[in-house]
Amino acid sequence: MGSFSDRLCAAVQRTGTPAVVGLDPRMELLPPFILEAARHDAEPARVAIRSFHEAILDEAASCVPAVKLQIAFYEQYGLSGLAAFADTISMAKERDLIVIVDAKRNDIDSTATAYAQAFLGVSRDAVGFPVSGFDVDCITVSPYLGRDSLAPFVDACSEHSKGIFILVKTSNPGSTDVQNLPLVGGQNVSQVVARLIAELGEPLIGSSGYSPIGAVVGATFPAEARHLREIMPRAIFLVPGYGAQGADASSAVTPIDAHGLGAIINASRTITYPGGRPPAHRDQLREGIRLRIAHMVADVAHALGNR
Amino acid sequence: MGSFSDRLCAAVQRTGTPAVVGLDPRMELLPPFILEAARHDAEPARVAIRSFHEAILDEAASCVPAVKLQIAFYEQYGLSGLAAFADTISMAKERDLIVIVDAKRNDIDSTATAYAQAFLGVSRDAVGFPVSGFDVDCITVSPYLGRDSLAPFVDACSEHSKGIFILVKTSNPGSTDVQNLPLVGGQNVSQVVARLIAELGEPLIGSSGYSPIGAVVGATFPAEARHLREIMPRAIFLVPGYGAQGADASSAVTPIDAHGLGAIINASRTITYPGGRPPAHRDQLREGIRLRIAHMVADVAHALGNR
Repeated sequence: MGSFSDRLCAAVQRTGTPAVVGLDPRMELLPPFILEAARHDAEPARVAIRSFHEAILDEAASCVPAVKLQIAFYEQYGLSGLAAFADTISMAKERDLIVIVDAKRNDIDSTATAYAQAFLGVSRDAVGFPVSGFDVDCITVSPYLGRDSLAPFVDACSEHSKGIFILVKTSNPGSTDVQNLPLVGGQNVSQVVARLIAELGEPLIGSSGYSPIGAVVGATFPAEARHLREIMPRAIFLVPGYGAQGADASSAVTPIDAHGLGAIINASRTITYPGGRPPAHRDQLREGIRLRIAHMVADVAHALGNR
Repeated sequence: MGSFSDRLCAAVQRTGTPAVVGLDPRMELLPPFILEAARHDAEPARVAIRSFHEAILDEAASCVPAVKLQIAFYEQYGLSGLAAFADTISMAKERDLIVIVDAKRNDIDSTATAYAQAFLGVSRDAVGFPVSGFDVDCITVSPYLGRDSLAPFVDACSEHSKGIFILVKTSNPGSTDVQNLPLVGGQNVSQVVARLIAELGEPLIGSSGYSPIGAVVGATFPAEARHLREIMPRAIFLVPGYGAQGADASSAVTPIDAHGLGAIINASRTITYPGGRPPAHRDQLREGIRLRIAHMVADVAHALGNR
């Protein structure tokens, strides 16, 4: 198994797109026919989410390289939601989709090691019975606690061929409050984090030319994305902010190189919750998902072609 | 029900100590008799953690105001670990302990709302069946995404009488990498975050004189804690770093006021995993926990008396 960055680049080349579908379960936005079918189950939230995501994953498979699960939307439904999180991971893996968990985790050394084990670890049998976490391909990580808090995740990337995307410049308006604070010497906070990512990723650069230590850089700040790309030439960018958050494809493709590599672009609400009249049955749901994925793929390809 | 800060201050006064016990399950450190009893269960990890924590919570009840669950150590055991997380929350509530979840969560607006719902929300029935998260008293939150990312948590504190502790200065050596970056104008990053906390907490100050918008400030940097206290006079500090992480009680009590209020001091490994020969049976486990909690309470009281 190659490094995470090589696997992701290969999947982008195979599917021909850097577009990624985000899976954020929101019970109140699920189609009524899915809620109705789940209502009498012992675990209605779990069953409803699984049924909805199965339809999306069937359409996403072979069309996009990866899916991104935003774990907050599963945690809001407690243990039922987290069971649906595990179900969704299994279904995505069965369909050969790379699984990104957007968790923005981090903590001090030993605790960061536990988080790395939770998402990037492998099953262990240290105490006479097996214990395991969720075992996905990569997660997002927060840098606020500094270099030693990132080390356990970097080790997991190296040891288990996993990846991380460290928050650099997020897509929300308030991202300026901390990330753009101007430092003595002329840089800002996000640029210092970017330099750290470039350094951490350097020893792990794969045959794709990219490292498994990636960066979250919002599509909503394209000028900053260009500057951050100069600081981190070998980091894959995970780009949120396209679609519902307001950025267009031409902004989102900023960090992508001439071979179509170097960044993946996520859309969640735009694909899964388009608004308007909800689909009345499963075929209509799948058709809508298929069309919106195709539209995003074309939109991104068009923006790449027009540069 | 009063505000979170008033409830926490009342619990500190009732128990006479700001000491808090941390519950971080590490399978390889559990006493062998607990692992052995759980080995043949269908969910051995869940059963072992629940059994261990039940003994600790029995001893912690009425001796300390609160317990702190570090969710990373539960997530590392996947769904079994998270079931044990829910079990531990229930057992702590049954014993009238305030429940702090150390989760260091955050994300953009709608996602932060989902995290707030996951931990600080209440059960809802928006879609014809009930959905709920974990419903604890307070969680830790990361500030890297800025003010708008904190707003949903502040709203939850106000609406549901909950609390948050926002990361300001963490206890690890690498905390300097981002938190101590020197800014144009003379402050550093942690001080800007501290000013934001003071501002967010101002409208929510309770009869205790403290607000439910607290701050994580490590015991390992007492000089910085003193300066941060000046910036945030009404924030309750959650103080990690005492014990296994190297800070002594005299450093940990720095932010506590003349009435014994204003900060809570956490110890996890020091109480639950002291090293040495593991306890051979339940009575021995409970006696050890009892002695170590009593020792920490006395150590903190001594440091407070000696100021």
